[in-house]
Amino acid sequence: MKIALAQLNHRIGDFEFNTTLIRENIAKARAAMADVVVFAELAISGYPPRDFLEFDDFIDRCQKAIVEISRDCYGIAVIVGCPTRNPATKGKPLYNTVYFLAEGRIVGRANKSLLPNYDVFDEYRYFEPNRLPYSIIQYGGKRFALTICEDLWNMTDDPLYIRNPMEELIKLKPDLIINIAASPFHYDQHRGRKDVLIRNAVTYKLPLFYVNHVGGQTELLFDGGSMVIAADGTCIDVLDYFREDFRVYDLENPTPNPLPWRGGGRGEGSIGLIHDALVMGIHDYFHKMEFSKAILGLSGGVDSAVTLVLATEALGKENVRAVLLPSEFSSENSITDAITLTKELGIEHEIIPIETSFQSIRQTLELQFRDLPSDLTEENIQARIRAVILMALSNKFGYILLNTSNKSEAAVGYGTLYGDMAGGLSVLGDVYKTQVYELAAYLNRNRVIIPENTIRKPPSAELRPNQKDADSLPEYGILDKILYRYIELRQGPDDLIREGFDEATVRRVLKLVNNSEYKRYQTPPILRISPKAFGMGRRMPIVAKYLS
Amino acid sequence: MKIALAQLNHRIGDFEFNTTLIRENIAKARAAMADVVVFAELAISGYPPRDFLEFDDFIDRCQKAIVEISRDCYGIAVIVGCPTRNPATKGKPLYNTVYFLAEGRIVGRANKSLLPNYDVFDEYRYFEPNRLPYSIIQYGGKRFALTICEDLWNMTDDPLYIRNPMEELIKLKPDLIINIAASPFHYDQHRGRKDVLIRNAVTYKLPLFYVNHVGGQTELLFDGGSMVIAADGTCIDVLDYFREDFRVYDLENPTPNPLPWRGGGRGEGSIGLIHDALVMGIHDYFHKMEFSKAILGLSGGVDSAVTLVLATEALGKENVRAVLLPSEFSSENSITDAITLTKELGIEHEIIPIETSFQSIRQTLELQFRDLPSDLTEENIQARIRAVILMALSNKFGYILLNTSNKSEAAVGYGTLYGDMAGGLSVLGDVYKTQVYELAAYLNRNRVIIPENTIRKPPSAELRPNQKDADSLPEYGILDKILYRYIELRQGPDDLIREGFDEATVRRVLKLVNNSEYKRYQTPPILRISPKAFGMGRRMPIVAKYLS
Repeated sequence: MKIALAQLNHRIGDFEFNTTLIRENIAKARAAMADVVVFAELAISGYPPRDFLEFDDFIDRCQKAIVEISRDCYGIAVIVGCPTRNPATKGKPLYNTVYFLAEGRIVGRANKSLLPNYDVFDEYRYFEPNRLPYSIIQYGGKRFALTICEDLWNMTDDPLYIRNPMEELIKLKPDLIINIAASPFHYDQHRGRKDVLIRNAVTYKLPLFYVNHVGGQTELLFDGGSMVIAADGTCIDVLDYFREDFRVYDLENPTPNPLPWRGGGRGEGSIGLIHDALVMGIHDYFHKMEFSKAILGLSGGVDSAVTLVLATEALGKENVRAVLLPSEFSSENSITDAITLTKELGIEHEIIPIETSFQSIRQTLELQFRDLPSDLTEENIQARIRAVILMALSNKFGYILLNTSNKSEAAVGYGTLYGDMAGGLSVLGDVYKTQVYELAAYLNRNRVIIPENTIRKPPSAELRPNQKDADSLPEYGILDKILYRYIELRQGPDDLIREGFDEATVRRVLKLVNNSEYKRYQTPPILRISPKAFGMGRRMPIVAKYLS
Repeated sequence: MKIALAQLNHRIGDFEFNTTLIRENIAKARAAMADVVVFAELAISGYPPRDFLEFDDFIDRCQKAIVEISRDCYGIAVIVGCPTRNPATKGKPLYNTVYFLAEGRIVGRANKSLLPNYDVFDEYRYFEPNRLPYSIIQYGGKRFALTICEDLWNMTDDPLYIRNPMEELIKLKPDLIINIAASPFHYDQHRGRKDVLIRNAVTYKLPLFYVNHVGGQTELLFDGGSMVIAADGTCIDVLDYFREDFRVYDLENPTPNPLPWRGGGRGEGSIGLIHDALVMGIHDYFHKMEFSKAILGLSGGVDSAVTLVLATEALGKENVRAVLLPSEFSSENSITDAITLTKELGIEHEIIPIETSFQSIRQTLELQFRDLPSDLTEENIQARIRAVILMALSNKFGYILLNTSNKSEAAVGYGTLYGDMAGGLSVLGDVYKTQVYELAAYLNRNRVIIPENTIRKPPSAELRPNQKDADSLPEYGILDKILYRYIELRQGPDDLIREGFDEATVRRVLKLVNNSEYKRYQTPPILRISPKAFGMGRRMPIVAKYLS
């Protein structure tokens, strides 16, 4: 029996697109003499469909698509994910279902039992878990155990769920495990994913075929990496990362597919993966929103430099506009560095000074501000004037403004709302400052694109004379370590102090993080590359007193 | 046996505050000779604690508070909600628990079985549902059935949950039902809540004592309305709405508490309730964030007028600053109306024209814009300059900017990001334009505060000559009906067309709503007064194609 895996970039709610894509891949599988072709979790609706699932009309369209696709299934079977109505009167109205289509009809289905509802996942918001006994799908003389993503993940010593679907399915003597998934990227996810799949194959002594999504869905970045694991736990083959891929395997003797690795020179290092994830995230956000052109403010600092290089890779240099918006506090170096970078990239640059507008706003407020000393207000005015100018160019010429703030700044609220925190998409909002430097080094790995000076000089917002980030914040080396432990590891102040961090610094940083929730509430969507990103993965109350 | 109900305004994560508040109310109950005093769901941590629940340290503090409070419980029993660790190795790590404290210790507890995970609720994100058999707490010769909020709500013909806790508890022959809750306000919630509690009392033939939270928690507004229902379903007494309240009842013969109704002239009409909810929401947001002063831009239109009156009621006229920011397109009438309003309220007004700054930005962009015709860009620049000025005043003097956009505008994206969509809190973002007019009429019920002309004139953004909202949008009477059906009722386009709405209008409006997700993603938190508010209650993908 030949099994095809179709790792595709589906679109949320675009039934016409998804149906066509799936049918094309069925044809491809048939041409490759496959007996079965496997698609990802909720491939019909795209993932995550979120509250669209509450619309009857949306579910109707999903069901129509399944029927339509089943009519293609002659001489080939299709395994595909789709939301389904729960016919019972009790429980939530929907199931997250894997369909088995063959002979022009639906021959079987299985509903997801374990519904992730943590971090970026909200599946229990919509779906009823399967509570019925499991069953096996028989097709072509083989017994299929159909599972969906999280169904295979309850393998730890401290399991999150009471049930373990494979424990029940194994009693029905399947010949293979199918797992269709929607497992978004973070820099460690591919390792955890492989481990858990191998653990399943070994525990149940069965070959395992796994299909994941690929592509960016606003903040969620699906990295693909679908795979085939042999019954002895050998990882036979991994589909490409960050690209659509399609491969066919012989169930009796699966072997690595001889397709060339198309991912470029990327090794196992997480910075290479983060780089690819961000480029894909920018590309897919623009492509799926039907935008093509990006604009950003180039300060001469490392954040906007890295953002510009990533945007150029994602959209092409002809689609990126870089604008320098110097003020009286911008250093000569910053301007030179920014221009050097645009030249390296072959991008036109333009300089729009903000001095006149800044003075005009100050004059407008002369009566109110009288002779009060300059403070953060004047710094914020400069940042906001830059946003007004960038958004004006965006509105007039159809650019999308890329936000260049990093995760360290977002964490401690070191940024101006409606100023440098503005934008349609945050590229680096899940990348700590120390990781931004690693990204810069990675981008410079073959030739110097980002000027050495941009990387070497002390970080500064350049909003007042001789300002340095280090005037207001701990050194990023320390700051990022504290932030990582508080945000990613959910360590409290006592844990951090026990680990040896200075108590006053810890308390100050944690307080800054908590007191900046109101700012982060209004930031653009952030491309997620870590296990705990700001945005949908981290949900904090704004009004709260804990630690503050 | 005398039972006290303590309906309080708890604070999220402020353990010191909550513990003190609870102890004060225990003392009050003891002074009133009560045998038992009942507090709300998760009263110890405040509700909703959201991802703070993922911090071990946070749970430790909750548990310490319970132990501390239990030491007060001599001669009186306390029923109170608190997060608890799940000791089992399987399942989620926490329970949502109701504690029964007496004789200086924890004498019993019950874990919540039905965990709401829809709309604004995310309880399954954190808590394991109770799966164990139920038990009864015996105290003072009475048998208590302890339940938490949703545990009593599975009473419909199409229940959301498989289990119904009272069906099992009733077999243990309790003498009364206790329900501690965190049931946030929307304009129909108090009716649904009373119905469901009466239905429980009648079905199980038991008296029911119900305690809810009161107070604003950022967007969630808890209206109180705790109550006592007799075993025959008679509603004996309802505690006050939108205020803390404390009342004591005789279990054997509960009678209405003779406390005066403090809610003012408010009838049953939902506009009166919406008014009270918004005033409380503004007040509590400022009070809990330790802000006192608000600023807003006053346009002469009805939205900013209503926002100003509500803010004045919530914060006092001395704490509200109203700024007129006219441009060349502001009508003479608008300025007069805005000034008249501030005079009615006894508030100083000031006028800061934006013309100079607008021209300065245009000049700055002269080279880029050349002789391209004016379009939405120039309208947005004006809106954004207003935000720069208001935020500068906010930064310099410590005001919080109130956002004045209404739900109809937010729905269709009729607003400028970083312009009129800016602010620390959105007061009217869950109030449709037609409801804003009802609110204006309500505010004018005793004397004309908002000028008749503000209410009567056709709505306009006044960003170009003779602009009217009706140039770009359907009439609000039609628009709001379509929006309500799409947003609150989740009707699809076919349903709407079947109901008789014009097909082209329906498709246009729904497309506008879907295509504005990216804007709403960046709006301030919105005070929630409807069953489906933008923000945490409505979670849509930004990149999606459904209907667009």
